[in-house]
Amino acid sequence: MKRTEIRQLFAAPESFDGAEVTVCGWVRTIRDSKAIGFIELNDGSAFKNLQIILETEKVSNFAEIVKLNVGSAICVRGRVILTPQAKQPLEVHADEVVLEGASTPDYPLQKKRHTLEFLRSIAHLRPRTNTFEAVFRVRSVAAYAIHRFFNERGFVYAHTPLITGSDCEGAGEMFRVTTLDPKNPPLTEDGAVDFAQDFFGKATGLTVSGQLEGECMAMAFGKIYTFGPTFRAENSNTARHAAEFWMIEPEIAFADLADNMELAEDMIKYVLSYVLEQCPQEMAFFNSFYDKGLIERLDGIISSDFGHITYTEAIEILEKAKDQFQYPVYWGCDLQTEHERYLTEQVMKRPVFVTDYPKEIKAFYMRLNDDRKTVAAVDLLVPGIGEIIGGSQREERLDVLLSRMGELGLDPADYSWYLDLRRYGGTKHAGYGLGFERLIMYMTGISNIRDVLPFPRTTGSAEY
Amino acid sequence: MKRTEIRQLFAAPESFDGAEVTVCGWVRTIRDSKAIGFIELNDGSAFKNLQIILETEKVSNFAEIVKLNVGSAICVRGRVILTPQAKQPLEVHADEVVLEGASTPDYPLQKKRHTLEFLRSIAHLRPRTNTFEAVFRVRSVAAYAIHRFFNERGFVYAHTPLITGSDCEGAGEMFRVTTLDPKNPPLTEDGAVDFAQDFFGKATGLTVSGQLEGECMAMAFGKIYTFGPTFRAENSNTARHAAEFWMIEPEIAFADLADNMELAEDMIKYVLSYVLEQCPQEMAFFNSFYDKGLIERLDGIISSDFGHITYTEAIEILEKAKDQFQYPVYWGCDLQTEHERYLTEQVMKRPVFVTDYPKEIKAFYMRLNDDRKTVAAVDLLVPGIGEIIGGSQREERLDVLLSRMGELGLDPADYSWYLDLRRYGGTKHAGYGLGFERLIMYMTGISNIRDVLPFPRTTGSAEY
Repeated sequence: MKRTEIRQLFAAPESFDGAEVTVCGWVRTIRDSKAIGFIELNDGSAFKNLQIILETEKVSNFAEIVKLNVGSAICVRGRVILTPQAKQPLEVHADEVVLEGASTPDYPLQKKRHTLEFLRSIAHLRPRTNTFEAVFRVRSVAAYAIHRFFNERGFVYAHTPLITGSDCEGAGEMFRVTTLDPKNPPLTEDGAVDFAQDFFGKATGLTVSGQLEGECMAMAFGKIYTFGPTFRAENSNTARHAAEFWMIEPEIAFADLADNMELAEDMIKYVLSYVLEQCPQEMAFFNSFYDKGLIERLDGIISSDFGHITYTEAIEILEKAKDQFQYPVYWGCDLQTEHERYLTEQVMKRPVFVTDYPKEIKAFYMRLNDDRKTVAAVDLLVPGIGEIIGGSQREERLDVLLSRMGELGLDPADYSWYLDLRRYGGTKHAGYGLGFERLIMYMTGISNIRDVLPFPRTTGSAEY
Repeated sequence: MKRTEIRQLFAAPESFDGAEVTVCGWVRTIRDSKAIGFIELNDGSAFKNLQIILETEKVSNFAEIVKLNVGSAICVRGRVILTPQAKQPLEVHADEVVLEGASTPDYPLQKKRHTLEFLRSIAHLRPRTNTFEAVFRVRSVAAYAIHRFFNERGFVYAHTPLITGSDCEGAGEMFRVTTLDPKNPPLTEDGAVDFAQDFFGKATGLTVSGQLEGECMAMAFGKIYTFGPTFRAENSNTARHAAEFWMIEPEIAFADLADNMELAEDMIKYVLSYVLEQCPQEMAFFNSFYDKGLIERLDGIISSDFGHITYTEAIEILEKAKDQFQYPVYWGCDLQTEHERYLTEQVMKRPVFVTDYPKEIKAFYMRLNDDRKTVAAVDLLVPGIGEIIGGSQREERLDVLLSRMGELGLDPADYSWYLDLRRYGGTKHAGYGLGFERLIMYMTGISNIRDVLPFPRTTGSAEY
């Protein structure tokens, strides 16, 4: 008999009234009282468990089944009984229970509260807990929402490379990718490592951004986005940094900073709405157990207009409150998380785009403003997190770009293909990067990036 | 005035009849005759170009515009005129043309045929050609189809890690990922490289498969899939191998090899149907210029039932035709592409699942059949390519798995988390891997993997 998923039962209880079904899943709890047993069964298709009722008279292996350890896998054939008065809309009365795979008394996920720290040490099992079932389903649904959003708007999904021959953006330290002998690498006559003998014939690393390649695609398709893994070899052991994370990077041609912000605002609202609609139980769970104001805050963001201030205005506001901050505030400083959160939480009380940063603290490819001091950069700050999106209008003027590269000591020969985009039909264009894990943390109230990545990679840790 | 995309015009020509629009894009061709100019404009939103008509009397910078080089970016304000008698459903009569970014006479994509080899050398510009605009749009649409397919069926999208601490599958040679000094790495007392001092505190590499981690997720969610980059440090300079490619790996619990094949067949048919429906112009282009029988073959696959034979049956068939092959055929041999293509093209004349391979030529985690000689493995062979999918039912019996690992000299301690999946509620389960680039090659008739990856990474080459 074909297996029925628990989500199908919960989606249309009436249509299963009295039906015989086979459900398969893992035992979350089990108890028995005399001749009757109760199993909470979870099959991962629905957040909520299905209640299974066993009677000793009907289920031939009753005694064996009610002694099963938590975590065991079973298949149950039985009848669906609607229970409109109960919390659950239905239950299944078992006629037959088949043990698929037993568990043991030392199963680490016994029915009690575990700390997130402990669960990190069993990342291969933690998706079987309420918290991580909810986190990783929200992650999956949010990823799908991203693809839907861009697809509905006609964007082309571009797979930019992960292994790269140059640290083009200088956005962070890179991991080296190599097949050279780690102990005795080949050397050149000068005694340097001879990367010409490495797999790709040169030194390569893991990308910190697909943006520059994304721009190539945008100059053909007009509107593209990337969504893939990105890397930082930074020794920052914080709750917000992972060495491997996923990033979304749209790039739009014939577009300026205002178009860029409009796209970012639409995207954030779309993803939040989609997840709230598709994952009501998971979101209610986070709202109850991780962040009491979560759903109200997300609803507020969906219905609000995001704020807009310039960096210069932001500095003026922050200077008035500088006693509250650990880091100094002055025109030209990089905004710290404490500054960002003050602006979005205390001042604007909603997400806010901060634009037009000093060119000295931003990347070479950002478009120089007419004041020649600032660039058309934008960061989106959100309550509870700080920066969630960073973007800019790109410098499309070849002469200005070359001059900026000269100021920064970048060799144009290393970027000839990137400069070609300005030589041959360059256009006004813009884009941004969204750290996917930051978005998931924001949506779930989970405060450590290690708990929104299935198998996190951080300084000193690459288990599984 | 808000920009209109060319795809919007082509999607509903009548609704734009006589309307004033602004279109922005890149000049594909330009010609003029006396007082009238013709521009074929492409903005990447539609495969077909939009015809722009310029009259010297109306467009003030007519003389400048008609002298533009191919590849220039322009914005055109004008009126939509329906042309039901012409090949194109409409054209735009310009009132104003603004130059966004000029091109030059040395623009590499002049109006003539270029070889795919030449275009590979300008990968940053090639998306502006018909072939690569079609390839990368099909790639994007196929990726979306994959996500839609699994999402509609309730699969959770799992992001498995790319940096990994162990070559668990042994599926291929790995790239090392490191931040150690390449020339003078720290050494242990024994004189070996001290990977304890590396970024992750151990030796790490780039994953060859997310399957084992995917199994962890499937043992919680029941049905999951991965879709992400995968790596092989293999020195194979062929038209079918890249060092970095994208792979789809679904994993299903409470499922056997038959369920696995059903899923794979449904998925292939879904993606082909979706792409044929969404990209009719691109597919017609491939059918005309790359593979005359393409659409007919794909339609045939959608409407056919895939064949099923065992490896043992396949060997019997191949032995009868062994004179045709370069490689020897015998029970126990690994099937070569020539064998695979003979089976699917000459014998079955449709896609065929080959199952139950000798355990010696397959991975340790594949489920041992009752004959104890073969395992529940499956490869899907398709005409024109050979193997496109490889999968198996997984060994869920702890004792059998441990015994297989012992035969192969694998240390159970290295796989304790993987073995836990059998200790705690293990279930019958199965999954497969689909190389995304192989699928794109199959759908487009493009025969070199370097031409379906935007920025391919192959032995000796990691440009851009």
